Amino acid sequence: MIDQVINYALKNNRIYLKDLFELLRIPSVSMEPKHNQDMQKARNWLVKYMNSIGLEHVQLVNTNAEPIVYGNWLHAKGKPTVLIYGHYDVQPEEPVDLWKSSPFKPEVRGKYLYGRGTADNKCQHFIALAAVASYLKVNSELPVNIKFAIEGGEETGSKGFSQALVQNKKLFSHDVSLIIDFGMPNTSTPSIGYGLRGILYTEIILRGPKRDLHSGLFGGVVENPALALADLLASFKDSKHRITISNFYDDVIRISSAEKSLLSKYPRSEADIKKDAGVERLIHEPGITPELQKKIRPSLDVNGIISGFIGEGGKTIIPAQAMAKVSMRLVPNQHPEKIFHLFRQHIVKRAPKTMSVEIKKLASEPAVLTNYHQPEIKAISRGLEKAFYGKTVFNRSGGSIPAAGHISKIYNQPLAMIGFSTRGDNLHSPNENFYLPNFQKGIEAMIRILHELSSLS
Amino acid sequence: MIDQVINYALKNNRIYLKDLFELLRIPSVSMEPKHNQDMQKARNWLVKYMNSIGLEHVQLVNTNAEPIVYGNWLHAKGKPTVLIYGHYDVQPEEPVDLWKSSPFKPEVRGKYLYGRGTADNKCQHFIALAAVASYLKVNSELPVNIKFAIEGGEETGSKGFSQALVQNKKLFSHDVSLIIDFGMPNTSTPSIGYGLRGILYTEIILRGPKRDLHSGLFGGVVENPALALADLLASFKDSKHRITISNFYDDVIRISSAEKSLLSKYPRSEADIKKDAGVERLIHEPGITPELQKKIRPSLDVNGIISGFIGEGGKTIIPAQAMAKVSMRLVPNQHPEKIFHLFRQHIVKRAPKTMSVEIKKLASEPAVLTNYHQPEIKAISRGLEKAFYGKTVFNRSGGSIPAAGHISKIYNQPLAMIGFSTRGDNLHSPNENFYLPNFQKGIEAMIRILHELSSLS
Repeated sequence: MIDQVINYALKNNRIYLKDLFELLRIPSVSMEPKHNQDMQKARNWLVKYMNSIGLEHVQLVNTNAEPIVYGNWLHAKGKPTVLIYGHYDVQPEEPVDLWKSSPFKPEVRGKYLYGRGTADNKCQHFIALAAVASYLKVNSELPVNIKFAIEGGEETGSKGFSQALVQNKKLFSHDVSLIIDFGMPNTSTPSIGYGLRGILYTEIILRGPKRDLHSGLFGGVVENPALALADLLASFKDSKHRITISNFYDDVIRISSAEKSLLSKYPRSEADIKKDAGVERLIHEPGITPELQKKIRPSLDVNGIISGFIGEGGKTIIPAQAMAKVSMRLVPNQHPEKIFHLFRQHIVKRAPKTMSVEIKKLASEPAVLTNYHQPEIKAISRGLEKAFYGKTVFNRSGGSIPAAGHISKIYNQPLAMIGFSTRGDNLHSPNENFYLPNFQKGIEAMIRILHELSSLS
Repeated sequence: MIDQVINYALKNNRIYLKDLFELLRIPSVSMEPKHNQDMQKARNWLVKYMNSIGLEHVQLVNTNAEPIVYGNWLHAKGKPTVLIYGHYDVQPEEPVDLWKSSPFKPEVRGKYLYGRGTADNKCQHFIALAAVASYLKVNSELPVNIKFAIEGGEETGSKGFSQALVQNKKLFSHDVSLIIDFGMPNTSTPSIGYGLRGILYTEIILRGPKRDLHSGLFGGVVENPALALADLLASFKDSKHRITISNFYDDVIRISSAEKSLLSKYPRSEADIKKDAGVERLIHEPGITPELQKKIRPSLDVNGIISGFIGEGGKTIIPAQAMAKVSMRLVPNQHPEKIFHLFRQHIVKRAPKTMSVEIKKLASEPAVLTNYHQPEIKAISRGLEKAFYGKTVFNRSGGSIPAAGHISKIYNQPLAMIGFSTRGDNLHSPNENFYLPNFQKGIEAMIRILHELSSLS
């Protein structure tokens, strides 16, 4: 029976791909108000598609930000209920001039499908939809109960998601959740993520003189907000790449040697990371490899800075203000609220008296860590292994998926992060892509995972 | 005779103002290529105007940047030749939304004329043109020989000016030069500038990864160019506001107590400076007042920074690169080339090995210092004092007028910086303005200065 479903999916791969292209063409950038209508278009497309493949109770669940597209199929009596999470919003396409093809005109070049939102996350959740579609087409039923939650605010920190779960706790209740927003270490090795770093995303604005001043007339007597901001930013890390905010590392837990050994099986070398990043040298704290550094250690990055005149040539001003976006990746047991407090203290202590300082928290989410010994995780692993003919590797990612954190916290059920995008997918960057053979392979894997999960009842 | 000229100027003040408005309406922003045609329009306007008032040999002198508008009157045999310098280019109007009236629609509100290019520099050099026009109208002759050099590249560092002087050395030769691009301490106290700080304007670009990277996947293992730039910028000054570049202060000369006393007569208090700047606290090095700090001590400012994502919300990236504009104000005996070398050394020594660094010199100009005891300077002072009924104060400015440096270096003749703009003129900022009663007073002063200079022959 499962072979029939897989065969059906294989035969209809081109049709699924055609459907996916429609979704990819919608520039659903949640971060930019000008794309509000496109966000709505993407939601409407998903509602229509979910209805067309036989999902039920298809609806938009309101959040205080972008609505979640919901659909279910709950006729597998006595079988577990699987919540499948993805997101229909995408990152902005900037800088546009670095794209080889238009970001919202999906284009196949070689074995890759290029376009904003391919890897992150439209190909990924569409794979789950196609798997469900194939089951319902061949069988008129699914081996397990299914709930889809495709949100629209992942790229803006999933702000409304948590509240929507709390307010609709039963609607989203489940026995196991699959967060399909993850990657594989290469095109053929299946992978399950059981941990994520959390995030704290902030904005700092220093305001000095009321207007830009002439740097000749006031240079040396009016403190420069751009320079003061540089001082502040420079104070966050020492020369050994450690974060210098007082008590920042207090709650970080040491990793066990068993887990270290599990993570070491993940087939990525330092050279791979360099290649992925396109850099010749990596950094890390003393006594830890770069591969572990980015998974289990917190980090601090400046995501953007703006101040003063940045056009061509030279404008001789002391800028009136300076702004920086600073984000931290947090590890399990670090509390975003506590870290924000320490961060704020660090700044207030150092900000010059000649200017005012504003510190905004734009987003925050604690890290996620689930127990990878649970039977649900093992079933998911078997499904992946049968599709990919390889041993599943287990991983913790340095990235954040706030929704995974919310689902984990609110329901406390087994949770696995899977996905079929591969390294080199240019996530959040120009020329984002998806390895096309894994579109088909991914659908097969999802079919098999649902099948394996049905044996747990 | 001189009274008749002054009376004529007084009676015709409204006509001169009307003419000036035409010039102010032309958005001659040299910094922005989109204003190329406006630059040409401003030049053409000046050529026509100079011809109309009786100046001779009116012509455009080519530079490798914007042409200089030249005109002379050389029939005062045995009398000194006075070179009058001004500039027809203006600063960009940004940020436009902070202007109360449209930057290029001059508007009188109360006693002030508002518009981009009023104080800097169109009202100022137009005053000299109106003085000359009044003489030629009443007398058909001038008391001294006159040459006008109104350049178009002041706001972009007067790049072509020096070369144009060298190539046309005789055309611009003179016995005394008047740089009409200066201000008064208040609306009634005449002032002569005899010193200027020089400038070194640079741009630093740090390039790390080839593209913006996901800060979750690479945070902690790829060095952040925005953070590295902040480190660099923070390294330029210490907590006592001293510049930390090695050997930076080596060539700075100590000021004599006589000069300190002269400068102390300049009627500006710390409170005035705060008010001008719109700040509550000033900074300065230990052992020097803010007023002297900005005149006789070098400074370093960050004029602009840009890196990464600066829109609304949060984009979780490690930026591929970061850029800052950094300028230094130099004092007499500091050599821009030497300082640039020290600056570059400082950066190269500190730039992280994980990224490439580019250091551009956008403009440079040594400081100016002339002997204020010369008879020409005294004659100019008498002219000012007779018009304003007050004692001339002598000043050194923290700003740079590169052309003054070039004229001083190439001709080595007495040079005085005068002007009729006042504090609060919002130079280089929104709501730039000019105190309107000094438009008329300035014309009278110029008439008197030319008269006083004729007695030196």
